[in-house]
Formats: sequence, C-alpha cells, structure tokens
Amino acid sequence: MTTDTADPAAAPALVPDFGGSGSAGRKLALICSKGNLDMAYPGLILANAALGEGLEVNLFFTFWGFDMITKRRMGELKFTMLGNTATHMPQGLGGLPGMTAMATHQMRKQISEIGVPGVPEMLEQIVESGGHLWACRMSADMMHLTKEDLYEPVEGIISAADFIEMTAGAQLLFI
Amino acid sequence: MTTDTADPAAAPALVPDFGGSGSAGRKLALICSKGNLDMAYPGLILANAALGEGLEVNLFFTFWGFDMITKRRMGELKFTMLGNTATHMPQGLGGLPGMTAMATHQMRKQISEIGVPGVPEMLEQIVESGGHLWACRMSADMMHLTKEDLYEPVEGIISAADFIEMTAGAQLLFI
Amino acid sequence: MTTDTADPAAAPALVPDFGGSGSAGRKLALICSKGNLDMAYPGLILANAALGEGLEVNLFFTFWGFDMITKRRMGELKFTMLGNTATHMPQGLGGLPGMTAMATHQMRKQISEIGVPGVPEMLEQIVESGGHLWACRMSADMMHLTKEDLYEPVEGIISAADFIEMTAGAQLLFI
Repeated sequence: MTTDTADPAAAPALVPDFGGSGSAGRKLALICSKGNLDMAYPGLILANAALGEGLEVNLFFTFWGFDMITKRRMGELKFTMLGNTATHMPQGLGGLPGMTAMATHQMRKQISEIGVPGVPEMLEQIVESGGHLWACRMSADMMHLTKEDLYEPVEGIISAADFIEMTAGAQLLFI
Repeated sequence: MTTDTADPAAAPALVPDFGGSGSAGRKLALICSKGNLDMAYPGLILANAALGEGLEVNLFFTFWGFDMITKRRMGELKFTMLGNTATHMPQGLGGLPGMTAMATHQMRKQISEIGVPGVPEMLEQIVESGGHLWACRMSADMMHLTKEDLYEPVEGIISAADFIEMTAGAQLLFI
Repeated sequence: MTTDTADPAAAPALVPDFGGSGSAGRKLALICSKGNLDMAYPGLILANAALGEGLEVNLFFTFWGFDMITKRRMGELKFTMLGNTATHMPQGLGGLPGMTAMATHQMRKQISEIGVPGVPEMLEQIVESGGHLWACRMSADMMHLTKEDLYEPVEGIISAADFIEMTAGAQLLFI
C-alpha cells in the first residue's frame, strides 16, 4: 500500500475526477446486497483496501446486505454451500439439517486463520478509517427496521436517489 | 466490433463526462444477469433512481436476467430461499414442493406493501423516463429467442462489444 | 435531485480520463468472484469484448472465482440450478444425485452450440488479446494455493490494495 501524493504524474492533474492519476479525489462506492457470510466479505475487504489507499469510500447496504448492518444479525451471518458448486461438495448435502451451521463454522475458522476479523470488526475498522455506511430506505421499510435496529455508525437511511447523488464521479461495485 | 476513433461525435469531447461534478452528462449502465425476483429489483430501482436524477441510463439484460425482458417470463419471476441464508429459514425447507411458490408469493406481497410495482411496471416506468433497454445477443442465441419474444420497448439485441462501445464514460454495475 | 450545471468546479475540466471520448486510455477491471460455470462466463465475455474494443483489461480472481484460474479446477466448473429460479425447474430437483452433473453437461452443450469456447480457452484468448489476469492473495492463502497451482499466464498474486492501486481510472465490475 502506498499513497500517491508524491507521484509526479499525479501533480498536474487539474481535474481529478475519476482518479485516473492517483487517489486524490478518487471515490469508491459499494452496494452490498448479499447477507451470506461469504459474499459479505468482498465488499468489506475492498472497502478497507480502498481506504488504505486514500480513497473516499461509501458503502450502501440494501436487500439481503441489510443483515450486515442489522445489530442482531451482523455477528451471525451464515454460509451455505447450496447453489455454490465451487465448494466442491455434492449439492444434495447442503439441505441436510446442521449443514449450514457446519459450513458456517468451517468458513469462519478459515477466515480467522488467515487473520481476517469478523464482519462487525471489519465494519468497525472501515468506520475508523473514514468509510461511510448507509442503509437503504426501501430495505428498511420492507423489513420494518428503523435506525435503532442498525449498527450505530450507520450514518443514515437513504433512498436509492440519494445514493445516486452521492456517487457522482465514483467507481461503483455491486456485490 | 468497431473502434470509435473515426466517430466525429467523439472527437470534440473536452469535458470529462463521468459526472464528477453533477449529473450533466453522467451515465449509468447496468448489466442485469439474474432472473430471480429478488435480484431483478436492485437494477430496476437503481435505474429508476438514476433517471430521476437526470442520468442517461442503459440496461443490458443477459444470462438469467433475460427473463426480465422475455414476454412470457417477465411477469412470473420467482423467489427461492435456497442458497440465501439471509432469509433466516432452514435451507432444507427450500427444496420442498410448493416452497418456491410460497416464498415468491410472500415476497411479492412485501414489495407491493411498500408501494413498489411489479417488474413489468418498473420496466415501463424506466422506459417512460427515458431509460434504454438492450438484450444480449449471446443469451438470445442460447435461449433461441428473437425480438418477437421480448418486451417491446427493448431497443435491440446487441453484442457484448456493442455494449462496451455504448458505455464509454459510464458508471457500470453488474447485478 | 439537483443539476450542477452551474458548478464552477466542473468548468475547467481538461482531462477526460475516463474514456468519455472513445477507447483511448479506457480501462475495464473485472472482479471474478464466482466459481459456478454460468457465472464464470459473463466476466470472460465482457473482458473479451472490451479487448476487442481496444480497452485495457484486468481481471482479478477472488473467492469462488479462484476456481477459474486454478489448474485442476478451471476445466471442471459446474452448474447447479439450485438457488436459480430462472432455470424454470422445481428447486427440489437440484439436490438429487446426478443433477449437478446433468445440468452442467446440458449447459456446456448449449454454450458450445453457439460457438463459445470453454473457460480455459476463453482465458487463453483473453491473454492472447493482451488482457491481464491476477489472483487474490487472501483467496490463495485461504485455499492454501500458490503460484504453481494457478494457470500459468496469471501474472501475480496480489492484495486487494494492489488491485485498488491498479484500477485508478478504470470502469469496474464485480461479478
């Protein structure tokens, strides 16, 4: 990880509108739409990396990704091999009682072994590094959740239109 | 596949059109690749919001997302809890007879209760707001579908190369 | 909703570094995170199309997408209808013994019939056209894989931070 502030190529950039020449003014916005443990991580890891590189980072939690910022869910995300052939396990096993718990336990262990923290700790790190967390209004309405149900550092419940306004000039990822 | 080097419209482009400072010239292009009911909505909602903010919006329907613009499928998208632990239901239930129908019915109800219309109505709204719908050539070929099988406002069946050409300067989302 | 046409910050824009005017300098970076056969293709097809249009293309393989560049897996990606209602098959069937093999066989046939090559051949074509392949450090660590286990044209195992640095000014897609 380096910061490009001393990069001479970056210096004459008058309009750093998309980060084409360094991270000055570069913005990344991630839409986190999944609540499965395995698909929670990519957004968190990319957000964390982008903050380390000096980017402005906004995360928008929507649909199933709402679990990632819901207090009573965020520490309990689960993993299932169902629908995922890259687990290299017979799909028929995935529906058996106890398999989701076992697969979740196994994945947590693997993630922990390489030194990557849990989802709440990752979010905490992102917030401490200056990342911004936003909740989707429509998802909150669908799930009958309010600001009180959400992880405290979430800055607000906003509409898709607000998100669009906020992300002018940003690189976008839908996860 | 063509290169735009001789395109006169492209030549005088002086203004970085990635929307770094407002929505003038800002473009959003969404690739809709899923045909499950829950994953049909994010693209439609973001497209709708972006049109409301004055962005130019193109939607490209490909792979499973082809169902979203196929006449006999678009009103009948289904939802399954299989593979999705954020439904908080035992995965084993998802494969039982009638569960997909029940889960689909429940989700339609939830979506309707918060005032969000069905997929065909959302598409109609997007087209009325100036959004552009495009179908993927390879998907059409794989499914043996022609323009006649598709929702009428779809402007054309285009290749991935056409889509790449069309999205110069756009913010991209793969859903 | 606002339009910022009067925004003075927008006025002096001289460096259109996001490909707003053709493919000169335009960059596309794809994050391939899925290892199912059907979700391996979109990234490969878009990468291939973008290379044909003259874009600089980087592919970053992470999480389940790691299978796409792992020697002993890349030719054996599988497809399951589980969790995917757009297959129009009863979800209960997906878990039966032999169904993944049958569905995979069927999909390979369909893809082959429209003249699209297998995953290893698509990657070869991308590399020959100048595309760059990168493996995710964290995924390699989780799966205890080293450079020797990976498809040879993979240029390196890099961190998410490296990927962020590499993609300044690029259009991004998370698949």
